[in-house]
Amino acid sequence: MNSISDIQVFTVPKFLDRQGYLVAFDAKLDLKIDLRRVFVVSSHFGDIRGKHAHRCLTQILVCVHGACRVTCDDGESKKEVALDRPDIVLEIPPGIWAEQYYSAPDSVLMVMCDLPYDESDYIRNYDNFIAFRARGKS
Amino acid sequence: MNSISDIQVFTVPKFLDRQGYLVAFDAKLDLKIDLRRVFVVSSHFGDIRGKHAHRCLTQILVCVHGACRVTCDDGESKKEVALDRPDIVLEIPPGIWAEQYYSAPDSVLMVMCDLPYDESDYIRNYDNFIAFRARGKS
Repeated sequence: MNSISDIQVFTVPKFLDRQGYLVAFDAKLDLKIDLRRVFVVSSHFGDIRGKHAHRCLTQILVCVHGACRVTCDDGESKKEVALDRPDIVLEIPPGIWAEQYYSAPDSVLMVMCDLPYDESDYIRNYDNFIAFRARGKS
Repeated sequence: MNSISDIQVFTVPKFLDRQGYLVAFDAKLDLKIDLRRVFVVSSHFGDIRGKHAHRCLTQILVCVHGACRVTCDDGESKKEVALDRPDIVLEIPPGIWAEQYYSAPDSVLMVMCDLPYDESDYIRNYDNFIAFRARGKS
């Protein structure tokens, strides 16, 4: 089962010009995963979202506007990652509880996934998450 | 060869709560294409970007912050599409010249593609584009 040490943080090239930026993510190249689903979340300064784990899904998070802090938790250890530039990439493997704190106004988080949406893949209750982790060890 | 009538504009469900929005794009479900590449462009109010066509690539554009107007051109007719909400989706098939006008400050455009990056797929000169279209008809 994945632990905090399996969480990857890396950067991709950011192409800048006077007009703005461009960042790109090629499946199986910049990203190790297949791309099956992309979703985008916008939230207000100070909001906390996420608060779930996935049984099988890998998520790749990029903050494309504003800033977020993501807390990842394997049931024993936590790791906080600041996503405050669009070239910073956070890969969260399955089995990790994650919460996103929107640390700037008007932030937009893009999440790339290796599987289609499946509600049964979500663990939305923290006690159930801890039980899931305990079963994984036995 | 694709024409203006092959450009698709559609909406996906936008999940709203007091905190913001969530929009999701599942390959082969919300989107007809495979997802091979995602890129994100941010630009200033009044900027124009794009100005190229693709030989083979299909692009799906979503404005996730701010607003853009996209002009699509098949060499004979033009179509302008306003992307001012993150649930509006613009699918541009191959063979269409496109330009994006950033019509609000601090706009962010997400582009989902069905092929990896390949510079030889780009047609960056408008005269070459018109010649490419003419060859496609002969």
